[in-house]
Amino acid sequence: MSDSKQRRSKRRGRGADKTAPKRQVFYHPIWNTLPRAEALSSDQVETIHETALRILEELGIRVLHDGGRQILRQAGAEVDEDSQMVRFDRGLITEMVAKAPSQFTVKGGAANRDLPVGGNSLMFGPGAGCPNITDTERGRRPGALSDFVETTKLQQSFDIIPKLGGSIEPQDVPVQFRHLETTRVLMTLSDKVPFIYARGQGQVMDAFEMTRIARGVDEETFRAIPYTTTVINTNSPRQLDVPMTQGIIDFAEWGQVLVITPFCLMGAMAPITVAGALTLSHAEALAGVALAQIVRPGAPVVYGSFASNVDMKSGAPAFGTPEHIQSNFGAGQLARHVGLPWRSAAGTASNTADVQGAYETQLSLWGCVLAGANMVYHACGWLEGGLTHGLEKFILDLEPAMAIAEIMQPLACGPDEIGFDAIAEIDPGGHFFAATQTMARYQTAFYEPLVSDWANFGQWTETGSKTATERAYEIWKRTLAEFEPPPQDPAIAEALDDFVARRAKEGGAPPVD
Amino acid sequence: MSDSKQRRSKRRGRGADKTAPKRQVFYHPIWNTLPRAEALSSDQVETIHETALRILEELGIRVLHDGGRQILRQAGAEVDEDSQMVRFDRGLITEMVAKAPSQFTVKGGAANRDLPVGGNSLMFGPGAGCPNITDTERGRRPGALSDFVETTKLQQSFDIIPKLGGSIEPQDVPVQFRHLETTRVLMTLSDKVPFIYARGQGQVMDAFEMTRIARGVDEETFRAIPYTTTVINTNSPRQLDVPMTQGIIDFAEWGQVLVITPFCLMGAMAPITVAGALTLSHAEALAGVALAQIVRPGAPVVYGSFASNVDMKSGAPAFGTPEHIQSNFGAGQLARHVGLPWRSAAGTASNTADVQGAYETQLSLWGCVLAGANMVYHACGWLEGGLTHGLEKFILDLEPAMAIAEIMQPLACGPDEIGFDAIAEIDPGGHFFAATQTMARYQTAFYEPLVSDWANFGQWTETGSKTATERAYEIWKRTLAEFEPPPQDPAIAEALDDFVARRAKEGGAPPVD
Repeated sequence: MSDSKQRRSKRRGRGADKTAPKRQVFYHPIWNTLPRAEALSSDQVETIHETALRILEELGIRVLHDGGRQILRQAGAEVDEDSQMVRFDRGLITEMVAKAPSQFTVKGGAANRDLPVGGNSLMFGPGAGCPNITDTERGRRPGALSDFVETTKLQQSFDIIPKLGGSIEPQDVPVQFRHLETTRVLMTLSDKVPFIYARGQGQVMDAFEMTRIARGVDEETFRAIPYTTTVINTNSPRQLDVPMTQGIIDFAEWGQVLVITPFCLMGAMAPITVAGALTLSHAEALAGVALAQIVRPGAPVVYGSFASNVDMKSGAPAFGTPEHIQSNFGAGQLARHVGLPWRSAAGTASNTADVQGAYETQLSLWGCVLAGANMVYHACGWLEGGLTHGLEKFILDLEPAMAIAEIMQPLACGPDEIGFDAIAEIDPGGHFFAATQTMARYQTAFYEPLVSDWANFGQWTETGSKTATERAYEIWKRTLAEFEPPPQDPAIAEALDDFVARRAKEGGAPPVD
Repeated sequence: MSDSKQRRSKRRGRGADKTAPKRQVFYHPIWNTLPRAEALSSDQVETIHETALRILEELGIRVLHDGGRQILRQAGAEVDEDSQMVRFDRGLITEMVAKAPSQFTVKGGAANRDLPVGGNSLMFGPGAGCPNITDTERGRRPGALSDFVETTKLQQSFDIIPKLGGSIEPQDVPVQFRHLETTRVLMTLSDKVPFIYARGQGQVMDAFEMTRIARGVDEETFRAIPYTTTVINTNSPRQLDVPMTQGIIDFAEWGQVLVITPFCLMGAMAPITVAGALTLSHAEALAGVALAQIVRPGAPVVYGSFASNVDMKSGAPAFGTPEHIQSNFGAGQLARHVGLPWRSAAGTASNTADVQGAYETQLSLWGCVLAGANMVYHACGWLEGGLTHGLEKFILDLEPAMAIAEIMQPLACGPDEIGFDAIAEIDPGGHFFAATQTMARYQTAFYEPLVSDWANFGQWTETGSKTATERAYEIWKRTLAEFEPPPQDPAIAEALDDFVARRAKEGGAPPVD
């Protein structure tokens, strides 16, 4: 794995013994061993669930996609074509949601890249969906394809990130060709589970075919096993637009993973209360899940929730707030109430990779982890509430994520670890540096940090008083310089190139509004 | 409270409506509503506990204080005067530990400053015990009395910090007078629960008398109610020095709070394993608690634990590591096993208030909170593993602490919050900015940050692209400029001045080694 290479390289850079045995770590998969935090009583969970069903039944959802409304009408929903409103009998929702699997595995490009989703699974995803990118060398700028290449390489290089995100939008590629270029990058520079945008059937079918080429599987196999993921954002409140509805239909039909995530900013697209935002979000998620299950019973879906608040003085979104954390706790309870795997997100509104960025991202990260989220999106690299992906920010955010992965490991606590003999060996007031137990374990005993510098003030000053952000800059530079793509049959890259060339010649596939 | 004044001032500074009702918050006391994380099975807890008793019984503790050994011998411990070793029958330890109260309240200088300790209580203490101080204006320097004044004012100004710490060591005051000067500062600039160093009986008695003067209580009352706290650090491994033993005796006799905290750095003063460090720490804490209970059954004691690891390549201490977090989880289980209130600590090894400082402090903070620590020391302002207290760092660390306090509040989840009507009011695809529910709540709905800036990139750039650390600088400057001490009868300050003058004339009280 390239991670350990990267880590070794760092050690060498600091002059450590080159022959010393290294601590072997591979942070995937992670199983969440922490207890679940709750914000709601079981009665409150039930009340919110019932209210969400009432919203779907009495108020309904506007579905802008004609075919989507037709599918829903045929399944028994009440559809008003004039207003495009769809009302769901609660029995229909309950019946359909019950068809969704509670867990599944997304197939990666190598055995150790398979991604379990559900139960106690936990994964951290990269900051995604950002129009801009920033780093300390080149500044903030609109994302380009070369940036997409770099962010993909970085995501591939750290196993704490087991799933790729469309971290930035490569705006130097025309929109009708963009999905072809980005999917080619994902399929040649990484063997991790990819993310595909649902921006119309043309793009989705292209990306599915490119995935089949890269993974070497036929249509039938692809339809039977999830290899890809997408995110469906409802247009809160209570609306599903054309590309999102089409995405639900296509991904469900093909058995690929739908992460159905209302993005509910309290006070803006959702009620100003945590409970209200959870209720609206729950209703919208259930509607999306139900549509997927109508299209294909048993299709892999993830209950998504991303509810934070806005600053009511400016309308600006905020992340890592107490309300964001509490909404996570509640969303986890609701996801478990309906028995679905669930996805949440960390985040920060900070405009730079500073201390605010660090504490907001980590506050929201713990909110997700304690809430039992199976998928934590935007865990590394997200800035400005998602408007910018930061390369230093990506590196800096890896450290807390890896620390959390480490504490999920069982603690060794046998007689050797409790160590009565080790304690007996050292005189009162002495030290354990040369104890027998220490000598046997010191090379692999502790977590080795990626970014943290534990030198004392004098040493740190002598080596240039570098902040963590300055060290993070060096780390992403070195990681990119040393990057090697995962092994792949050259015929795959050729086949992908051929496919891209052919589809580009055909005009590509413009996104659907 | 000065906090809200400070917060209001910030709001004004950003041009908010001056007449708007403010969200009223007072982050004290806090009751920890999160579930408890565990690192050990109940069998492992029992095994560590039994091994600790075996250590005390078979290996013993070296007690350097003659009177301390005498007290222990009289209580039934086996004492070897040549080696100064004290061995404790497990029955003696068990009997004495059982006499300690499981919870108590430390009396503050005002009713809302009383500090409950035990059960689900939670408090965040300032970074303490640092020889140096740093800020972006004046740089890193040895602590002076003027710095002690500033850190005390800052601690008084934020109610999330309910207990004072000896944040820095005022090295411009001769050691024999230092406790007089610092205690005068604590007793005139703050009404919060003070910290007193156990550096010999002379200093402790002076500080007790000054506390009685400030609180207006006689000796009998003072002996009956805890007004002060200290920390007893054992000299791990297995040693109690003279001032620490004297401190246990004096604080126990006077019924003041003893926080008995072995400082066990894995691989240095403790075994290299988390389980081993916990075992040694547990043995030492139990010995200290037992001595206190022998001196005065029922004396208020706190089970302390501060176990992190060192970098085995350099011996440098590290904090906020996975091992630090896991040791917290285990220590909490051990404290609950013996039924004692417990204290832990956050921390960072970072040399500056950067992102490493932020993520390490917050990782360790969550470790403490999830472990159910009643007292979390060094939560705000600690740098360099305790060698330096940072003013910007103090301000920056307040935000995560306040966020955690906020999520401990019960979530309002009645019909108005779930808000079916609010959701019904807004059309699909609309927004809630002007919804009836929003208008009724927007002024007080959300947490108002102290440091975070949620402006978008353009606005943030226009106002100078200030990092969180730059804003923290402005906040501590403003807080100090606007500081007003709590109301106090002028006669108290006069009496304290008289006491200090008299004791200084008598030569003060040099610390005991």
